[in-house]
Amino acid sequence: MSNNIDYSLYLVTEAYREGYRSEYLKKVRQALQGGVNVLQFREKNASSLRQFELAKALKDMSQSFHVPFIINDRVDIALAVNADGVHVGQEDLPAEDVRRLIGPDKLLGVSAATVEEAVKAERDGADYLGVGSVFQTGSKGDATLIEMDEIARIRQEVTIPIVAIGGINAENVKRLPERHADGIAVISAILSAADPKGAAEQLKEQFLSKKHK
Amino acid sequence: MSNNIDYSLYLVTEAYREGYRSEYLKKVRQALQGGVNVLQFREKNASSLRQFELAKALKDMSQSFHVPFIINDRVDIALAVNADGVHVGQEDLPAEDVRRLIGPDKLLGVSAATVEEAVKAERDGADYLGVGSVFQTGSKGDATLIEMDEIARIRQEVTIPIVAIGGINAENVKRLPERHADGIAVISAILSAADPKGAAEQLKEQFLSKKHK
Repeated sequence: MSNNIDYSLYLVTEAYREGYRSEYLKKVRQALQGGVNVLQFREKNASSLRQFELAKALKDMSQSFHVPFIINDRVDIALAVNADGVHVGQEDLPAEDVRRLIGPDKLLGVSAATVEEAVKAERDGADYLGVGSVFQTGSKGDATLIEMDEIARIRQEVTIPIVAIGGINAENVKRLPERHADGIAVISAILSAADPKGAAEQLKEQFLSKKHK
Repeated sequence: MSNNIDYSLYLVTEAYREGYRSEYLKKVRQALQGGVNVLQFREKNASSLRQFELAKALKDMSQSFHVPFIINDRVDIALAVNADGVHVGQEDLPAEDVRRLIGPDKLLGVSAATVEEAVKAERDGADYLGVGSVFQTGSKGDATLIEMDEIARIRQEVTIPIVAIGGINAENVKRLPERHADGIAVISAILSAADPKGAAEQLKEQFLSKKHK
């Protein structure tokens, strides 16, 4: 399924609080209603059992929206719920080992902050890259900012789609080098919004209008 | 390989500190030299990449000692390094899903604190049980103590081996109901000892002498 995927608006979940399952699922559903194209599940602070239970629910939900469902880091949970793919960072299992575990057909995304990481990820079997952080972010305090030019340099060296990530919101999305990013990945700009559906619609519209200008 | 495994002295690693890889590996090696029969890798605080790297090294090491190598919780890392098995607690992936992921031949251990959990684990495909905590423990502050009688009750209801776990040391090992436990699982009593090899030898001798009395 690695072809023909629209990465325009890529939502990363990082909003689960123990005891607030239904509120959490409602927010993600609203985001999907607002046009999210890819859903990545990343709830590292929950127990493995809780992650598994939530992932099962989100897999069903994203399937009903015909949206690929990807799990961050935990290949085992991705296999257990038959997710559509896995996303790994540079501190997770190596991409080539993940590709071996998930087989050729599932999506593999890899986080890259440099041309070197990007080229290696593509060679190791990545279907797309998450490139960032492009802006300061509250959800990953330790994330390193990259220069905007780095996206252009990565674009020249790899052929797979690039999703820009890190602190993107309705304001700064205009400053992204739209020619080089196939999509934007967002967490809090959607999930912390009072109206996740409206926030998703607005972000997607702003990204696409800029891209197609 | 689920038959003919000696569970007498079962070591759980929980001692890795970033930057002290060689010291860590040395301690585990000394423990194996002291007679550890099963090695479980549990380093939940390390990144997935670090866990993977350490697990690869420990898999090779335990293989050279002909000791089964089991990974806690992370089925993906177990598959990636071709470990001999997986151990899951009640807050990890459900045993039946783990069994499906690892296939019929790899070892599956499940933590159980009650007869109900033990019976369910055996039904769901567990090869052995970790039962505890039998004593107060420093390494798992939130662990619930079980009554000693619970091991006897579990022993009556399941046929798979039982490994007692939780705060076991050279002193209190004498208080365990030896007839019902096939082995003892230990962390700090070995890995925090000045002489891990000597500590392992002593614990094993005390457990076995009591068991065969």
